[in-house]
Amino acid sequence: MAAALSFARCIVRPGLLPLCSRVWGSGARERAGLPPAQRRAFSNNKMLVELDEGSGVATVKFKSPPVNSLSLDFLTELSIGLEKLENNRGCRAVIFTSAIPKIFSAGLDITEMCGKSTEHYAEFWRAVQNIWLRLYGSNMVTVAAINGSSPAGSCLLALSCDYRIMADNPKFVIGLNESQLGIVAPFWFKDTFVNVVGHRIAERSLQLGSLHSAPEALQLGIVDELVPEEKLQDKAAAVVAQWLALPDHARQITKSMMRKSVLDRLLTHQEEDVQNFVGFISKESIQKSLRMYMEMLKKRKG
Amino acid sequence: MAAALSFARCIVRPGLLPLCSRVWGSGARERAGLPPAQRRAFSNNKMLVELDEGSGVATVKFKSPPVNSLSLDFLTELSIGLEKLENNRGCRAVIFTSAIPKIFSAGLDITEMCGKSTEHYAEFWRAVQNIWLRLYGSNMVTVAAINGSSPAGSCLLALSCDYRIMADNPKFVIGLNESQLGIVAPFWFKDTFVNVVGHRIAERSLQLGSLHSAPEALQLGIVDELVPEEKLQDKAAAVVAQWLALPDHARQITKSMMRKSVLDRLLTHQEEDVQNFVGFISKESIQKSLRMYMEMLKKRKG
Amino acid sequence: MAAALSFARCIVRPGLLPLCSRVWGSGARERAGLPPAQRRAFSNNKMLVELDEGSGVATVKFKSPPVNSLSLDFLTELSIGLEKLENNRGCRAVIFTSAIPKIFSAGLDITEMCGKSTEHYAEFWRAVQNIWLRLYGSNMVTVAAINGSSPAGSCLLALSCDYRIMADNPKFVIGLNESQLGIVAPFWFKDTFVNVVGHRIAERSLQLGSLHSAPEALQLGIVDELVPEEKLQDKAAAVVAQWLALPDHARQITKSMMRKSVLDRLLTHQEEDVQNFVGFISKESIQKSLRMYMEMLKKRKG
Repeated sequence: MAAALSFARCIVRPGLLPLCSRVWGSGARERAGLPPAQRRAFSNNKMLVELDEGSGVATVKFKSPPVNSLSLDFLTELSIGLEKLENNRGCRAVIFTSAIPKIFSAGLDITEMCGKSTEHYAEFWRAVQNIWLRLYGSNMVTVAAINGSSPAGSCLLALSCDYRIMADNPKFVIGLNESQLGIVAPFWFKDTFVNVVGHRIAERSLQLGSLHSAPEALQLGIVDELVPEEKLQDKAAAVVAQWLALPDHARQITKSMMRKSVLDRLLTHQEEDVQNFVGFISKESIQKSLRMYMEMLKKRKG
Repeated sequence: MAAALSFARCIVRPGLLPLCSRVWGSGARERAGLPPAQRRAFSNNKMLVELDEGSGVATVKFKSPPVNSLSLDFLTELSIGLEKLENNRGCRAVIFTSAIPKIFSAGLDITEMCGKSTEHYAEFWRAVQNIWLRLYGSNMVTVAAINGSSPAGSCLLALSCDYRIMADNPKFVIGLNESQLGIVAPFWFKDTFVNVVGHRIAERSLQLGSLHSAPEALQLGIVDELVPEEKLQDKAAAVVAQWLALPDHARQITKSMMRKSVLDRLLTHQEEDVQNFVGFISKESIQKSLRMYMEMLKKRKG
Repeated sequence: MAAALSFARCIVRPGLLPLCSRVWGSGARERAGLPPAQRRAFSNNKMLVELDEGSGVATVKFKSPPVNSLSLDFLTELSIGLEKLENNRGCRAVIFTSAIPKIFSAGLDITEMCGKSTEHYAEFWRAVQNIWLRLYGSNMVTVAAINGSSPAGSCLLALSCDYRIMADNPKFVIGLNESQLGIVAPFWFKDTFVNVVGHRIAERSLQLGSLHSAPEALQLGIVDELVPEEKLQDKAAAVVAQWLALPDHARQITKSMMRKSVLDRLLTHQEEDVQNFVGFISKESIQKSLRMYMEMLKKRKG
């Protein structure tokens, strides 16, 4: 309970939530004789979390301008948010989407991987691991409503959900394009990708660091369906409703059965994977690649 | 030989088979100077087994009204039948089909899993395991001629064959819909499914407990082709002939190479899997789900 | 360096290559103040190797009439050639194609597997393993420009590349058709195939020993695209250029990550696999099958 309260303190704007414990507790208002709260919104620095207590469906809307980069702060907030939703028995599903036009998320924040200490790299990488373990292993129904481009680490978030719906806009791209930057998606990114699209498509796409347009992503199986952007949220809600029609325990055990071996692989090699990342990213050649990439991004903006 | 005779005694109607040993022996009639028996039919309680000695192709036709439920009795007969066909060198292929309109088989008999003793659950589960080990590991060419709906355990039978042909009727459905009933397909159902349709389709279909119409099943790769129902048996015979054109030993070694790791996984964890099933199915919450499901079925009939 | 020179001596025709070390050295001519050699052709008995030093792209053109059979000599030359290209830092990619109309390669040379000593079988099989280990694990970008039929061992070569382009001619076929000959593709052929087309397609195609026409091969994913034969080499060059646009180290680490487990499986069981092959191929029944097959081939020619 202390944990729940501290989380509520973290992400809740005072005024919206006079009674923190009600937000994440299940049926607390009802037990207190109050009419059920149907929809509540909580915002923190990097994302807006809304839980519809009637349906048990939460929406996590990324709102970290300019491009929802997965910085250490972002990942930490997301992790805390997911943990609390997971522990809230009133929450059965989460929809991830973006509050920023044209971009779902730009992926891992390169500034966290460039010119920092090895300790920082290690801390950052543990945060990335942690989000994936939480999301890929979530007991909740997880749906990505991809309303913009979704490269690299952001694509991993989408791939880790149970279902992916993308706005039908050929300008929006998605893919694990790490190799374009001279870096390498780790084995658990790869395992997640292979589980979605199979070995061959993953091998080719990862080697080429491909960013696929929405129609191509559908064809390759990276996303499950495309809908016009204005219908994306409704569609996500409909998909969640379909998945929630199943008994939770049977769905959860089935999901765990499908994903356990891949989750276990990282759990078994987690610290080794941190050391690999730190060793790789600390190389001067890699640092140089990343600096050049960031220069290019700056020039493109300018 | 004793085994062969006892099996013949089991499933053969007296009168049809004056010389049991000829039925399952290979070329016994020829050796005895008799004209070759081209087609022989044997019936038992739950299924009709026909072996065409000329072609070496057996047909197993399920005929256990009302819906070919995979009861303990059904599974036991099927197991004995398959064992004898497997050991009969004159039999090289089996076609599975149904004698009952609109239903291939309704899957595992829920009455075997509801309100019985833990010993009964264990015995039943071992019978299910046994059928799968026998069928998925069969040296014979196995073809499912799916002339009706094929949910849950019945879908597993089809998935375990070398080839699946389904009647082109959108009212017929197929899938591993266990989670709809609040139960969970075990890991070897899942492994078999993944080997046929890949990880992604299996993950989604198993979590949703989907029953796919014949056209959808074709699209997902659950079945290999659709044909009009009246052509189903001819098509199955043609497919078998194509597969039998290959040298048996090369085909068998190849099949074993493809399936061994998945078969071994159950063999290694067989008793553990029985205990898991018994523990799960004995839970009051699961028993309640199953009772509700059976009530619903009864009402639907009434 | 000694190795590089001895290889150059092996495959280089005197006159074409006055300075052997320049051929495989990277930028040796430039360092010596000479204008860069843009295109150099070396021919040996079984294949023509051309390295474009400007682009770093080598072409290996099989030219061993009548059908580019993968004999022990052919495999040995190919292995030495690949090793040298791999060790040449100026070479980043290889395109494989055939100089013989209508046939990419006929696959493993059956005469090497028939009527020879067990020592010979073992030596031959180690050469087959060696080529696969080298090709499937190559750091270079590898593209098969399949300008003719490509059965059995020849299909394995193609499957081991990063990308497969086939001439759009329905008369050209490709597949692992070993079982048609009464022999069995070993587990690492199977693993390679499964990584390309998935478990289901591999299981069916391997059991049936199917040879797929070019359009069918595209549909099944055995090849990545079809182009008119006259555009095949240009297309291969364009694909290589696309793959070489990526930083080598990121692409190479990614490739290794995708293929390592399958490569390791053979490395761990390499001698066991040799013994299996020798034991299998030495069987009188298998020898008889192969002799019959060769008789049939002879008659077909006659």
